[in-house]
Amino acid sequence: MSYSETLSKRLGSIGATEGAKLSVAAGGKKYTGTLMPHHDFSAEDVIVLKLKSGYNVGVRIDVDSRIEVLERPIPRERTEASVEPRAGLRNLVLIGTGGTIASYVDYRTGAVHPAFSASDLINAVPEIREVANMEARVLFSIFSENMDVGHWQELASAVAEEINRGADGVVIPHGTDTMGYTAAALSFMLGEVPKPVVLVGAQRSSDRPSSDAPSNLLASARFCASGERAGVFVIMHDTPGDDSFAAHIGPRVRKMHTSRRDAFRSINSPPAALIGGDGSIDFGPGRQVSRGKAVARTAMERKVVLLQSYPGMDPETFREIILGSRGVVIAGSGLGHVNGNMVPLIKEACDAGTVVVMTSQCISGSTNMNVYDTGRDLLSAGAISVADMLPETAYVKLMWALANSHDAEEAKRIMRTPLAGEMGDRRTIDV
Amino acid sequence: MSYSETLSKRLGSIGATEGAKLSVAAGGKKYTGTLMPHHDFSAEDVIVLKLKSGYNVGVRIDVDSRIEVLERPIPRERTEASVEPRAGLRNLVLIGTGGTIASYVDYRTGAVHPAFSASDLINAVPEIREVANMEARVLFSIFSENMDVGHWQELASAVAEEINRGADGVVIPHGTDTMGYTAAALSFMLGEVPKPVVLVGAQRSSDRPSSDAPSNLLASARFCASGERAGVFVIMHDTPGDDSFAAHIGPRVRKMHTSRRDAFRSINSPPAALIGGDGSIDFGPGRQVSRGKAVARTAMERKVVLLQSYPGMDPETFREIILGSRGVVIAGSGLGHVNGNMVPLIKEACDAGTVVVMTSQCISGSTNMNVYDTGRDLLSAGAISVADMLPETAYVKLMWALANSHDAEEAKRIMRTPLAGEMGDRRTIDV
Repeated sequence: MSYSETLSKRLGSIGATEGAKLSVAAGGKKYTGTLMPHHDFSAEDVIVLKLKSGYNVGVRIDVDSRIEVLERPIPRERTEASVEPRAGLRNLVLIGTGGTIASYVDYRTGAVHPAFSASDLINAVPEIREVANMEARVLFSIFSENMDVGHWQELASAVAEEINRGADGVVIPHGTDTMGYTAAALSFMLGEVPKPVVLVGAQRSSDRPSSDAPSNLLASARFCASGERAGVFVIMHDTPGDDSFAAHIGPRVRKMHTSRRDAFRSINSPPAALIGGDGSIDFGPGRQVSRGKAVARTAMERKVVLLQSYPGMDPETFREIILGSRGVVIAGSGLGHVNGNMVPLIKEACDAGTVVVMTSQCISGSTNMNVYDTGRDLLSAGAISVADMLPETAYVKLMWALANSHDAEEAKRIMRTPLAGEMGDRRTIDV
Repeated sequence: MSYSETLSKRLGSIGATEGAKLSVAAGGKKYTGTLMPHHDFSAEDVIVLKLKSGYNVGVRIDVDSRIEVLERPIPRERTEASVEPRAGLRNLVLIGTGGTIASYVDYRTGAVHPAFSASDLINAVPEIREVANMEARVLFSIFSENMDVGHWQELASAVAEEINRGADGVVIPHGTDTMGYTAAALSFMLGEVPKPVVLVGAQRSSDRPSSDAPSNLLASARFCASGERAGVFVIMHDTPGDDSFAAHIGPRVRKMHTSRRDAFRSINSPPAALIGGDGSIDFGPGRQVSRGKAVARTAMERKVVLLQSYPGMDPETFREIILGSRGVVIAGSGLGHVNGNMVPLIKEACDAGTVVVMTSQCISGSTNMNVYDTGRDLLSAGAISVADMLPETAYVKLMWALANSHDAEEAKRIMRTPLAGEMGDRRTIDV
């Protein structure tokens, strides 16, 4: 369905084309936003505005409504400046993967598209050239909900390659949806990587004035250029403003809000560093950079599932999935529980050699399966717990542990051994 | 395996029986805790202490270790005081369901058992008699990980019964693991319930001096006795101390930490009230108590599943579960996404009449499926989004909506209509 003839003419007469910034008064309310393309599902008298918040609102226009054009759409320009490397600055490589950070709003379709090139990204932050010599390459251009195990493997190999070719650090612009999972995957695949590897995202696309892409990128470059910390990190806004950025430990970070700039939070661990808007960096404990080689151990077992337990969860429904997997991570309730009906199925799976790992859907805090009967029953059934490890990290680690071990027992030992800061000391729990 | 002969004699000689409070110095560390029964899995030279934090620690004892008995175990006493109702006080009914709040540590097995009677609970908080006339009955005595749909139904009916028999409010001690799910279930089943219905739990069992059971119970009684608010609420510590308690809106609360006293947090909504340690109450907006009857609409469709999306989630693995369900709630990534491979399966399910509801695993913030292609693809496939509703609440509501509607379309309308404060105004999203 398109606009009604009346509305179409009215928009045309005032030059309200797609991408124009409008002020609209309708139905007793006032809206300011960018005119989006007409939606197939929308009625013919409704226009869609993208508000400053980034969200779309549908506004019904009648004869009493007022529409005013505040700004005409500006054609997007691309600048492609070639910059000579400067002596005395560290050399960082930016590996593009896509996501909002490398995206712009397509005003023809109204959707956000991953389309900025990696060098466009660097050029959008002129200050970054003062911090480090930046080289850019694009590996993928996808939204992170489509990142798959194969992408993680390719990315880990590319990172190792760049470090072994001399990069002092690698910055990876990445979609925020699954950035935490990728950070965990790189943490295990790259192990004791000798340089900083930073995943960085944005909650607002790069062509918008409110974008957090430039400031997150600059903070990432500063953290890498400091040459202080090796490992895999996620760097995003720590506060809604542009004054503080957190470098989270790769397997300890989780996206905890759908839209806020400071959506990423360290769970069960402080951040590895806080980076000020002025470039100052406050480091917590961590591993120093070194001269060694990077090694990517990328083997992953795909027959692993992540499930959340809930009241009414029926073992019959989940029977095939659980028995058909080599590994199962359950985000249980509380200290690591499931309903009692699930225990015989979990025992059957464990007896058949499946590794069943209990974590908690509470997200914060540690599992402890010795306090209550249900926890003890699960341990007796053969399930293991992994202290305060995130369910998502446990899922990624279990894929890695199963592919990098000889049998289920070895995989379980790997799961319970801290490798990349993903869990606290487990000696005080589940004795 | 039991203790070694040496260790067994040594414990006997100083009177260190199970349940005794010990000070132990071993391996260069010092521990204070309650001696737990010897564990089948523990080595013969290891004793298990329950620390003040509630957690167990295994301590290896050798000849250099020092063990001192600080306190002998106190036999548990039961007091059963019958109290006459007082004029001028409101009448509250306490319906026991079990959980840590109604539990004690069994020093023979070392486990926490649900065993306090409902009247024991009231008697443990003498001040409560000044606040309201309390009557108690026990409906279940289970840990909340075993609460099932049938328990919710029985509980909702019991609550309606008590209100219709004249109760001014109902207080429900409940295990914390699934208290949020039960609160959501009661919210939809009891709808516009005319009185306050409060679920209350504890993170430390009732026989321990550090228990939060008495203070949470007292705050719940005060909130109900105020006669100010009707609806379903969860009342727990708002801070780690005993100075502030939050009354959370039933379908808006989530257990966000495995062990802290202030584990329960309101998500995407402020609490309905804050209750001070002194009994003062600061109310937010809410529904007033009234004289109407309580009605329990308890029908629930059980063929509903709750799934979390993750990278590598394979449609083949989830094919039978999704196509075999009448309702599917997916905790998607970011604004409500799944990987592109899952979309055809979701379309197939929607075409077959299954209701597929997208929520976000970010927990905080709202879904918005019009910003990115994946969201639009999901909407086109027939999935719906439910604004800022919690995944767990969406799961419970979908069971209720499917059982209380004639077809999938009506169930979808119910899902997208706020009924009990479970979602914000959806008019500005997903247009």
